[in-house]
Amino acid sequence: MSTELRFTVTYRVQGAADEIAARADAIRFEQTVEFPMDLTPERIIEASVGRVVEIAPAAAGGHRVVISYPSAIVGKELTQFLNVVFGNTSIQPGVRVERFDLPPEMLVGCRGPRFGRQGLRTLLDAARRPLLCTALKPMGLSARELADQARQFALGGIDIIKDDHGLADQGFSPFGERVRACATAVAEANARTGFRSVYVPNVTAPHDQVVDRAHLAKAYGAGGILISPGLTGFDAARRLADDDQLALPMMSHPALLGSFTASPDNGISHYALYGQINRLAGIDAVVFPSWGGRFAFTRDECLSIAAGTAEPLGTLAPIFPAPGGGMKRDRVVEMREAYGSDVIFLIGGDLHRPTADLAANSRRFRDLVESYI
Amino acid sequence: MSTELRFTVTYRVQGAADEIAARADAIRFEQTVEFPMDLTPERIIEASVGRVVEIAPAAAGGHRVVISYPSAIVGKELTQFLNVVFGNTSIQPGVRVERFDLPPEMLVGCRGPRFGRQGLRTLLDAARRPLLCTALKPMGLSARELADQARQFALGGIDIIKDDHGLADQGFSPFGERVRACATAVAEANARTGFRSVYVPNVTAPHDQVVDRAHLAKAYGAGGILISPGLTGFDAARRLADDDQLALPMMSHPALLGSFTASPDNGISHYALYGQINRLAGIDAVVFPSWGGRFAFTRDECLSIAAGTAEPLGTLAPIFPAPGGGMKRDRVVEMREAYGSDVIFLIGGDLHRPTADLAANSRRFRDLVESYI
Repeated sequence: MSTELRFTVTYRVQGAADEIAARADAIRFEQTVEFPMDLTPERIIEASVGRVVEIAPAAAGGHRVVISYPSAIVGKELTQFLNVVFGNTSIQPGVRVERFDLPPEMLVGCRGPRFGRQGLRTLLDAARRPLLCTALKPMGLSARELADQARQFALGGIDIIKDDHGLADQGFSPFGERVRACATAVAEANARTGFRSVYVPNVTAPHDQVVDRAHLAKAYGAGGILISPGLTGFDAARRLADDDQLALPMMSHPALLGSFTASPDNGISHYALYGQINRLAGIDAVVFPSWGGRFAFTRDECLSIAAGTAEPLGTLAPIFPAPGGGMKRDRVVEMREAYGSDVIFLIGGDLHRPTADLAANSRRFRDLVESYI
Repeated sequence: MSTELRFTVTYRVQGAADEIAARADAIRFEQTVEFPMDLTPERIIEASVGRVVEIAPAAAGGHRVVISYPSAIVGKELTQFLNVVFGNTSIQPGVRVERFDLPPEMLVGCRGPRFGRQGLRTLLDAARRPLLCTALKPMGLSARELADQARQFALGGIDIIKDDHGLADQGFSPFGERVRACATAVAEANARTGFRSVYVPNVTAPHDQVVDRAHLAKAYGAGGILISPGLTGFDAARRLADDDQLALPMMSHPALLGSFTASPDNGISHYALYGQINRLAGIDAVVFPSWGGRFAFTRDECLSIAAGTAEPLGTLAPIFPAPGGGMKRDRVVEMREAYGSDVIFLIGGDLHRPTADLAANSRRFRDLVESYI
């Protein structure tokens, strides 16, 4: 038993102090055998049920409850890992997943980020500075119009030119047509500038089309893949990250994930959701809404995401935080100071604002970022 | 323009009365072009941006905001439909999706439930009575032990014998071995009893294994498919429901979906999440935790789920609510009165309690239900 592989999940649990031990017991059974304690054979309790490792008052309110689970009940599947972490207990009021800790030997079948921070820096030839990112928008433009935008952004030196996450396979800009046009435009711009800008199309799609779209994107010259795991499931990202024939950097978008952090005493912490789970799913850069934009994440919540992208997690590489959600050029200094240089500045609408010349706007954005190295 | 296909989403929005119009504007842009209003070309606003149809105080607090979206921005994809309904706005505090309304012509590429209530009743030869369901558990038992359980339940006349949702492909009971053993056991029992019990294995699995496991399950004689869309993404269910070579009833489990309903002013209503979205995804029977068990959904919330499984939604068939989560035999009368007879009683642990003879316990459960027709 002493060599058995186990991992821990840290929950924050609400309730009166004298109820917490019973709540912890309920969680360790609910997340495993989902069976009455008195009916569960002793050998099953020993082999499969979680064990309470720690109960202590939590600074943020409620109690910190650490439960250790045997890796044997996960197998090698990210879906079942997430199920053990929070499946049924997500439906219990007043329980929040704060973090999990995995032994390096246990990576639940995930190779994790293929590129990570260092790989992405090498690919984009940006050794130390923050990376620049923007999104092609608004939806409703044609593939040709989006490709014109992409060309301008690439000429101006934006590193990562991604689809807006609402671009799927609509009639106004069908997936294949858009990807071919945008990837070609970025490649042509790179040939002129010497930059290594990448076009990153959105492959959030029906279950049976995600993989095909990613491969089609690669064939057309895409330099990365964008996916919204809240819409596809996290394992769709893991599937693409693990694909040696694809071997492209993966970027995730937070669409439909907001409910996990909507209540401070429920759901999954920013740290675990945007940092840890994205890394397990093989994401190299995670988009989230930074403070001071159109959304309401606090500075502390955003910095906890950045921490979750980098702190030790098995043997997984650190990945890039990509704060967006209404960021503007005048926030770059503040963000640079808060996030450090291992950050992707994602600026969308504001990059259209200074002049009608997107390439010139982009160059000024790049100059601004480079001046702070 | 007058013949353009549009659908509506009803949100409940928090905020001072004089802020609601601005919040509604923010939502209709955020969910579509995600671009500053003043920079969006008029033709794009006309063609792609949502339109506010109604703003009115809501009985539950906040305001009811109805936004109409053009189906053209969805295309034919459930992933993009969910993205338009709530993608980015899920991250905004104080916005809840209450329901959506689709014209019959627009089914976002979903054929919907293949069986529905009527199809499931025909399949199980149960014209009018509530259906009976249980789960094979606890995890940690071997495939042979689970198959012995399945046989007993089938001999006792349980209609639907499903995997516990934590059974995946662990070493103690590998998927293929378990499914073959359990399906065979149920078929043998049916041959003795004349009942039409079905074994419903869990195919919640890595992205690239969901479809294969479902087909393997069918080859081994499974009579339905269980999936947790919170873990796989809803479109994995849709993919299986649409599969003419599979053509098995689909049952969903709520694992990891709890955060959507954890806060009354955020997330997605029980009605829309468990009723409407499950139907769009082709689910024939939706498991959820009923009031009075181990979870905290209220009676009203549970009955709103039942309403969402049946009220008109395009041309989609009504499906079965399957209330579980700690239901016991002594709740059957109360549940029968609340849900009516179009319900699946899902009783797990409690079916192990009266005696060690699971077949006898199951027969008594069935007798109890049949006595209330």
